[in-house]
Amino acid sequence: MEEKVLGVLGGVGPLATIYFADLVIKMTDAKTDQEHIAMIILNHASIPDRTEYILDNKKPNPLPVMIADAQKLEKDGADYIVIPCNTAHYFFDEIQKSVRVPIINILEETVRYAEKTVPNLKCLGILATEGTVISGAYQNIIEKHGLDFRVPSEEDQKSLMHIIYDEVKAGEKVDICEFLRIVGELKKMGCDAVILGCTELSVIKKDFNLSRHDIVDSMECLARASISLCGKPIKAEQK
Amino acid sequence: MEEKVLGVLGGVGPLATIYFADLVIKMTDAKTDQEHIAMIILNHASIPDRTEYILDNKKPNPLPVMIADAQKLEKDGADYIVIPCNTAHYFFDEIQKSVRVPIINILEETVRYAEKTVPNLKCLGILATEGTVISGAYQNIIEKHGLDFRVPSEEDQKSLMHIIYDEVKAGEKVDICEFLRIVGELKKMGCDAVILGCTELSVIKKDFNLSRHDIVDSMECLARASISLCGKPIKAEQK
Repeated sequence: MEEKVLGVLGGVGPLATIYFADLVIKMTDAKTDQEHIAMIILNHASIPDRTEYILDNKKPNPLPVMIADAQKLEKDGADYIVIPCNTAHYFFDEIQKSVRVPIINILEETVRYAEKTVPNLKCLGILATEGTVISGAYQNIIEKHGLDFRVPSEEDQKSLMHIIYDEVKAGEKVDICEFLRIVGELKKMGCDAVILGCTELSVIKKDFNLSRHDIVDSMECLARASISLCGKPIKAEQK
Repeated sequence: MEEKVLGVLGGVGPLATIYFADLVIKMTDAKTDQEHIAMIILNHASIPDRTEYILDNKKPNPLPVMIADAQKLEKDGADYIVIPCNTAHYFFDEIQKSVRVPIINILEETVRYAEKTVPNLKCLGILATEGTVISGAYQNIIEKHGLDFRVPSEEDQKSLMHIIYDEVKAGEKVDICEFLRIVGELKKMGCDAVILGCTELSVIKKDFNLSRHDIVDSMECLARASISLCGKPIKAEQK
């Protein structure tokens, strides 16, 4: 099989992009350098903040830079494109329209994986940025799959935004108790599992080793789909 | 100041490339996504093994792919290029000749940093792949700086290659005792500090938290130089 190239439209944010690439490598069942997936990663840190624009479209629009980067990835030979940022999927359709190369949708892959792995799944909790929650993107996909959803209370959503922006993105200590309290609240509302629908939250999962069947990490779902589509084997414990 | 773009000629190996990018982000003193360095990373996993070619030039030559990737990075707007692989610096001059963009030399930056930070430095130990050791690249630079060097015994070098290839690159458990025994041998030979002159060894340093003034990590030195040249501040504790 000809080598497939994964194009990573990154920078949204920079840390999450590199964490995604790291996941792809660690989840691929490879024994030598040469057995890994070829990746082109554009880690364009200065892309304007996505949530800021979604909440107030007088703020700088990140879309033109993201389209330019997607086209650059296509020109450089990417066979698939991924955007390791849930919030940026607000712009998914417009970016997809600008290139012929298929973009793997992180939200779709995450809900599909939850359906496959969570026993008796009926209701999913959504932990994501305000931008993602307000856009309704996860809610739409979850409903299309015939499932129910819950989102955090307004107060908890604010606290989650503080964790994402002032702790993870800023490289500061994460208040893990507060984060897990919010997860607990969603489970009390009836969620069978909770989606980590923001790549900064995936970083928390890694740092605090939160491997549980009821926490579904969108970043891992995107990595899994990328490895499969590029024709490489996934490590058994990561399937 | 106009935004500088760091081009990363990666894939040599894939894990080390991502670890390098991660270091750049973690060592940059940034509070928001937008304050990070823009990076274009080509993680071209299938590049033929460097050490294999250096030891036996009938094996596939990685140089043509590396030149093509350097030129692609230049075309895509990189202001500086880095190659996060000590062994690949065997090809440094030829790759540099193929592009106008300056390539930051990991070996030069490492020896320079050791000189700056190790008190009364007279002798450096070299821990690297067989390819790097045989090429004499570190030895030449160390001598140019008026310093002495030591390399591991033939038997210890073999053991080190096993750690690099069969443990780190293969994603297997690292025999940390054996690794530190080899470091100890170099210090017993009179080395004031030991250079981790192979990016897989930098991964060991991270995984086992080996922060000591007498272990000089080439990957960190390259990250430091990249951040400075791209005009971004370095976190105080990483200087």
